[in-house]
Amino acid sequence: MSDKGKQSEEQIIQGFFAPLSQGYAGAFGLADDCARLTPPPGHDLIITCDPVREGVHFFADDAPQDIAYKALAVNVSDLAAKGAKPLAYVMALSFSSYPEPDWLRGFAGGLREAQDAFGLHLIGGDTDKAPGPFSAAITMFGSVPTGTMVRRRGAQLGDLVFVSGSLGRSAFGLQLRRDPSLGARWGLSQAEHDTLLLSYLRPCPRPGLCTALRDYANAAMDISDGLMKDLGRMCALSDVGAQIELAAFPLSDAVAKIIAADQQQRNLVLSGGDDYELLCTVPPEKASLFAAAAQTAAVPVTQIGTISVDPGVVVRDAGGAELPLPHTGWDHF
Amino acid sequence: MSDKGKQSEEQIIQGFFAPLSQGYAGAFGLADDCARLTPPPGHDLIITCDPVREGVHFFADDAPQDIAYKALAVNVSDLAAKGAKPLAYVMALSFSSYPEPDWLRGFAGGLREAQDAFGLHLIGGDTDKAPGPFSAAITMFGSVPTGTMVRRRGAQLGDLVFVSGSLGRSAFGLQLRRDPSLGARWGLSQAEHDTLLLSYLRPCPRPGLCTALRDYANAAMDISDGLMKDLGRMCALSDVGAQIELAAFPLSDAVAKIIAADQQQRNLVLSGGDDYELLCTVPPEKASLFAAAAQTAAVPVTQIGTISVDPGVVVRDAGGAELPLPHTGWDHF
Repeated sequence: MSDKGKQSEEQIIQGFFAPLSQGYAGAFGLADDCARLTPPPGHDLIITCDPVREGVHFFADDAPQDIAYKALAVNVSDLAAKGAKPLAYVMALSFSSYPEPDWLRGFAGGLREAQDAFGLHLIGGDTDKAPGPFSAAITMFGSVPTGTMVRRRGAQLGDLVFVSGSLGRSAFGLQLRRDPSLGARWGLSQAEHDTLLLSYLRPCPRPGLCTALRDYANAAMDISDGLMKDLGRMCALSDVGAQIELAAFPLSDAVAKIIAADQQQRNLVLSGGDDYELLCTVPPEKASLFAAAAQTAAVPVTQIGTISVDPGVVVRDAGGAELPLPHTGWDHF
Repeated sequence: MSDKGKQSEEQIIQGFFAPLSQGYAGAFGLADDCARLTPPPGHDLIITCDPVREGVHFFADDAPQDIAYKALAVNVSDLAAKGAKPLAYVMALSFSSYPEPDWLRGFAGGLREAQDAFGLHLIGGDTDKAPGPFSAAITMFGSVPTGTMVRRRGAQLGDLVFVSGSLGRSAFGLQLRRDPSLGARWGLSQAEHDTLLLSYLRPCPRPGLCTALRDYANAAMDISDGLMKDLGRMCALSDVGAQIELAAFPLSDAVAKIIAADQQQRNLVLSGGDDYELLCTVPPEKASLFAAAAQTAAVPVTQIGTISVDPGVVVRDAGGAELPLPHTGWDHF
């Protein structure tokens, strides 16, 4: 119960984090006990809570800018899946030792980049020194017009299954983060290597798709723990199953090149985590409208299958044969 | 990226935590990506974010019921200081190893007790296995009639300074938690020992005072880092100072007995953390109305001083002499 360290908690908050609250009246400059947030009239507030932890979601020596950016991006992804526009966030940080000013500056800089990219303000939080690796527990707030939040439970028999972007990039980026020599083994150019690595370090959520989801999707979620696991969750909650066609999968050139070099890697597209693409189901009669709205939003979407009556997720190859699947995916335990 | 451990994250959430969300539609049974929360019509949403961490806010071998109860109580205290009625919370848990079912049951039981005591629902969260001690990062939501949140910045020259309850109990409870033999040295009965220990383990926030604060206080905050430090923060933000009379301090019988036995312990009443009492300033002409409203709410309040023009906090003894003060208080760094 004494003052320790070089700067007090308040000096750190006021020096590095309070500037990130500027422009948001209800943040009170991070100098009060609480923040005030009221959704716009006619809107519901949507809340997500996704922490990032060193050794689990990032490496200790990742750049602080990237750690901060990822911490916000993964929460924006959750909101986007519900059709919600990001508004603000609070953040509980835990440091094992006194953070270096350069590191804090980098971390605050990454938050700023993400705030600017996604239209966010920091409105509150807490900073502790506690044993154990660094963690940032973010709680983020978004808004949707009242009653329009898109549920995970809601997939209907006959719906078409869509995903945004392409799959597996981040999972291969993580492999390259662990073992850069894999790039040569897979025949990747330096640019391809860098793009995949960046997909892991700086996920690219899809808030642009939120209006299209609200207007046309029966169910949506973001893909954070691997397509198979997350689609399985959506189907289980919705009391349906899904038939997926591997040939339809959207793959980046780099990922296609890796799979061509090593067919075993195909599973990572199905089960690798950290995609932060959106998964949704759309009734067939709305599919062309959904695709057009996605195009207007400049978010690529691809139909990869359909919702079926039998529970579980079945993946078929180009010839229609059912693929044996690794029953894996990211679990936090 | 594989399934590890005995129960999956989802099994833990559905088995132990989803029941705590029952009755709150916007929690979606903790089975969606996000929660939906909309403040009642004509109300602002008030948000606080206060984590508890093993080794910082509690001991590793504290009962899980107590850890859980404290995690919610300290956030209720922040809301109460703003005049806000508690509504709901989200929670990010980090376990270093697989939690035992008995421990989880106890933890969920403590959450349930606090939910029932304060009118809360769990509406979302996240559970990770990560290196380092256990932590629970709570973000809690409350509501106030639009525009009535009580600020920390707002103390006015001439205001009377009030505190709720009595001071120092939790700080002495922490001393007893560390060294139970102190009870005998201080001449405490077993009942007094137990009451002080409980003040540390199970803080008693004062949400009952929130209407009186909204109606009569110019400024309020909760006392979590020691009276001197927290009153100093309030004064600095409000561009005023405070004159405090030590003789007016509300002390429990047990705390009075400790100070009688050892005058040195007096400082802990001024600077010890974890009181979770409310500190507020009230204009003199409203003081009797405030006291009456507090009495109606069955929350004891005591005037301990006045707001003055000179910056800083001065404490005077019964004879009016200025006391030399330890410039301490809890800092999280």
